[in-house]
Amino acid sequence: MTETKQILALNRFDAERARGLDGRLGELVARRQRAFGVSSVLFYEQPLEIARAEGVFMFDASGKPYLDVYNNVPVVGHCHPAVVAAIAQQAGRLNTNTRYLYESLTTYAETLLGTFPAALSNLSMTCTGSEANDIALRIARAWTGGSGFVVTETAYHGNTSLVMEVSPSSYRKGRELPPHIRTIPAPDSYRLAPGEDLGEVFAGHLQRAIDDLEGSGIRFAGLILDTVFSSDGVFADPPGFLARAVERVHRAGGLFIADEVQPGFGRTGDGYWCFGRHGIEPDVVTLGKPMGNGFPMGGVVTRPELLECFCAETGYFNTFAGNPVAVAAGQAVLDTLQREGLIANANSVGGYLRDGLWRLAQSDARIGDVRGAGLFVGLEFIGVDRAPDGALASHVINAMKERGILIGAAGAYGNVLKIRPALCFSQANADQFLTTLQAVLDVG
Amino acid sequence: MTETKQILALNRFDAERARGLDGRLGELVARRQRAFGVSSVLFYEQPLEIARAEGVFMFDASGKPYLDVYNNVPVVGHCHPAVVAAIAQQAGRLNTNTRYLYESLTTYAETLLGTFPAALSNLSMTCTGSEANDIALRIARAWTGGSGFVVTETAYHGNTSLVMEVSPSSYRKGRELPPHIRTIPAPDSYRLAPGEDLGEVFAGHLQRAIDDLEGSGIRFAGLILDTVFSSDGVFADPPGFLARAVERVHRAGGLFIADEVQPGFGRTGDGYWCFGRHGIEPDVVTLGKPMGNGFPMGGVVTRPELLECFCAETGYFNTFAGNPVAVAAGQAVLDTLQREGLIANANSVGGYLRDGLWRLAQSDARIGDVRGAGLFVGLEFIGVDRAPDGALASHVINAMKERGILIGAAGAYGNVLKIRPALCFSQANADQFLTTLQAVLDVG
Repeated sequence: MTETKQILALNRFDAERARGLDGRLGELVARRQRAFGVSSVLFYEQPLEIARAEGVFMFDASGKPYLDVYNNVPVVGHCHPAVVAAIAQQAGRLNTNTRYLYESLTTYAETLLGTFPAALSNLSMTCTGSEANDIALRIARAWTGGSGFVVTETAYHGNTSLVMEVSPSSYRKGRELPPHIRTIPAPDSYRLAPGEDLGEVFAGHLQRAIDDLEGSGIRFAGLILDTVFSSDGVFADPPGFLARAVERVHRAGGLFIADEVQPGFGRTGDGYWCFGRHGIEPDVVTLGKPMGNGFPMGGVVTRPELLECFCAETGYFNTFAGNPVAVAAGQAVLDTLQREGLIANANSVGGYLRDGLWRLAQSDARIGDVRGAGLFVGLEFIGVDRAPDGALASHVINAMKERGILIGAAGAYGNVLKIRPALCFSQANADQFLTTLQAVLDVG
Repeated sequence: MTETKQILALNRFDAERARGLDGRLGELVARRQRAFGVSSVLFYEQPLEIARAEGVFMFDASGKPYLDVYNNVPVVGHCHPAVVAAIAQQAGRLNTNTRYLYESLTTYAETLLGTFPAALSNLSMTCTGSEANDIALRIARAWTGGSGFVVTETAYHGNTSLVMEVSPSSYRKGRELPPHIRTIPAPDSYRLAPGEDLGEVFAGHLQRAIDDLEGSGIRFAGLILDTVFSSDGVFADPPGFLARAVERVHRAGGLFIADEVQPGFGRTGDGYWCFGRHGIEPDVVTLGKPMGNGFPMGGVVTRPELLECFCAETGYFNTFAGNPVAVAAGQAVLDTLQREGLIANANSVGGYLRDGLWRLAQSDARIGDVRGAGLFVGLEFIGVDRAPDGALASHVINAMKERGILIGAAGAYGNVLKIRPALCFSQANADQFLTTLQAVLDVG
């Protein structure tokens, strides 16, 4: 149970190949490697130089358009004019910190909190989802007095030292789990045995992990889950399957942290938050990526008594968090989601897209499963006996790129296409994706 | 030595007093408290509603100007047109992540790295100084195999779980230091005994802390210092006094992390980095606050082999870090510092300001010391026998605010005025500050 699976970095550019790149690209890559060293991570066998982006499209240096089905940060579309105008206007007016009063901050918080269950009435702002999860874990430690966390085997929750502990997908080969962390299998609806109930199976794994922690003398602090299991391979169905696990968490005295950094802000097509799909009420919710459509911002939403418990232990202040420019960007995102009906669009176009993918699957046995909610869709490539086929996913990703579509993969074996375009994705965009995928699969 | 001093939060708004505030302000504060709960921290006995800012001035909701001598984030001036234009233009063109290539990122890194000693040739970008210090500490742990860090008693390095451990100024009363952290007194040049050498005294404290760690079976990983000791009370002189401490760090097999989040980007008036003042070469340098003039960005600069050691342990990626908008803001900051000669200005106006403060001190025994470098100046209020007078600092801060000047305090007793305006601060601005301070002290 505590064995950590490694995501195969199939889609990662390999610096060793840099010498084989042609003129400008080769020079750009070499300069970048010099300045950023090993910390430079690039997509694709042939990295992509991107010059601009608009709506659901990104454009490379030569002007070639790419339909962006990968990046979930620009949730209302790349460079959305409403967000750009809000940032530009506010950056020219005031950019300071929250130790001064400015009404826009409170108005934003009120708007955002209005999308949550009433008990989740306090917001604390950060600059990133990682900072938000770092706080969430500390809230759980402070509230429970415990240090034990349970996470899924291929979870990713961010990059601070503390959050990395609960992000086994980022562990390098051979790194062991810290003694206070337990991993459990993702709720793999595709590999469920006949007659099994997904909620029961998942809650059973959780209970054994909690028991194992307590048996080791480690008090259970909580369960942290990406509510759509993004890096585990996208698992959204059946709605409600998480309820039993949350019950077990509370019975064991822990907190349930819903990481909405990837699924949040309407992407799953039914309300703002994916936890709503399961009829559950988290103790702590963390926000990030799409919150400012690319402007760095994140947040923690929780109950006042939990926040008080954390703040009693430590004086927390975050210089950039909640600055007026971030707030302007965040407000523009919420307003645009509303004004353009993007959550409903995510639902309908997401359904249309999944239907199309299922039609592809009918005639292509390599597509084992199509799943997800709204515009967070997973498509699983398999071989014999449902064996994950990460190599095919990698091939498809690079071939799709050649044909002008950007897409990524997830799952412990990197075999699940992760489809999550901006929520203004249209049926025509979906058709382009479906046609291209079919063409790539017909050749490959 | 490990006793943690508490910064007296003398200048913090107390929510209990919210009911005493008049109409609009009272309502704004109440709404903010509801939405942000205990995590809401405001300045001043009467919080300030700020509507806009420009250059060295901030303006409240009624249009009243405040000379900003506190905020070190807008290093080239609030809402500098060059930075605002860079952000606005780039936000409308492309805002994505560093897994795609865009030349501006590399150009920025090259420009920034050009201000560092040649061996510090790798940059890793983050969104905040906290994230940068979180990485820096992990680099030191990975490189040395140790976990023991030495910090000053009132240090502040940021807000993640790991970085909070080395930020005793944020500990709540009664919280104990973690077993692998040792604190040492700040290099208090003002309270040095006759004949003592500051560098020797500081290195002696450090050596005893290292010995104490090793004696407890904890391997020494490194020393992390804010190179101008911002929260300890601002200590910059004599130049070179840190050299001996850095020698000891290296002799003990540890790394020296220079936290330039507060002093960096030219503020100390002689080159870009305050560590340069001491003729030392850090192993790791961390950057934050002024890096984007308010756009959330931070960074770690280090040697390639140190970064490799960190990356071998963990797969690090940061969604927002190094995005093209941050890069545009950062480049505009570097270009503006250069074009407007702001580092030289910090040096000359800083000297002019310190001279004026010393003249005030001649006729006012409550001013014990004036110190600092460039436009990072500390002024220490004392009573009998140099006893720190935090109450006077608090009074001055609130009285200065009434007279249109924003300023803060630092030091273990909150008795050191922390003077650090934008680097475009003029002699006329300095005169306004000096005249107002004199008037406040004449009354108080």
